[in-house]
Amino acid sequence: MNYRKLLGENIKKYRKIRRISQEQLAERSKLHRTYIGATERGERNISIDNIEKICKALDVNLKDLINDRR
Amino acid sequence: MNYRKLLGENIKKYRKIRRISQEQLAERSKLHRTYIGATERGERNISIDNIEKICKALDVNLKDLINDRR
Repeated sequence: MNYRKLLGENIKKYRKIRRISQEQLAERSKLHRTYIGATERGERNISIDNIEKICKALDVNLKDLINDRR
Repeated sequence: MNYRKLLGENIKKYRKIRRISQEQLAERSKLHRTYIGATERGERNISIDNIEKICKALDVNLKDLINDRR
């Protein structure tokens, strides 16, 4: 699986663990809700700065978002 | 340290471990040499797809590039 897909799946996983909506994650990370949705579906070639914003908003480390344990 | 800087330092570290130049890494990853240099200095908001190209060119996992052990 490529990193885009892996990242998207893990962002969704941790968002659900944190029990927050895409809107809430968008607000916390100062990104647009549609950007969050597309990123979770692996449709966005997300940048490292935006990955960092999402990590902070979810209170996770980048290592957590690239873990490949399903 | 932010992820840009961490990523840049580790790309440079593994490039040296692999004993290849920025030109060679640029060629292998199909990115421009100046892009590689700027990324190593933490000056580029690199995207996940380009990070993946560099990982493959260096034969490392993304986890290696975000390790914070100096």
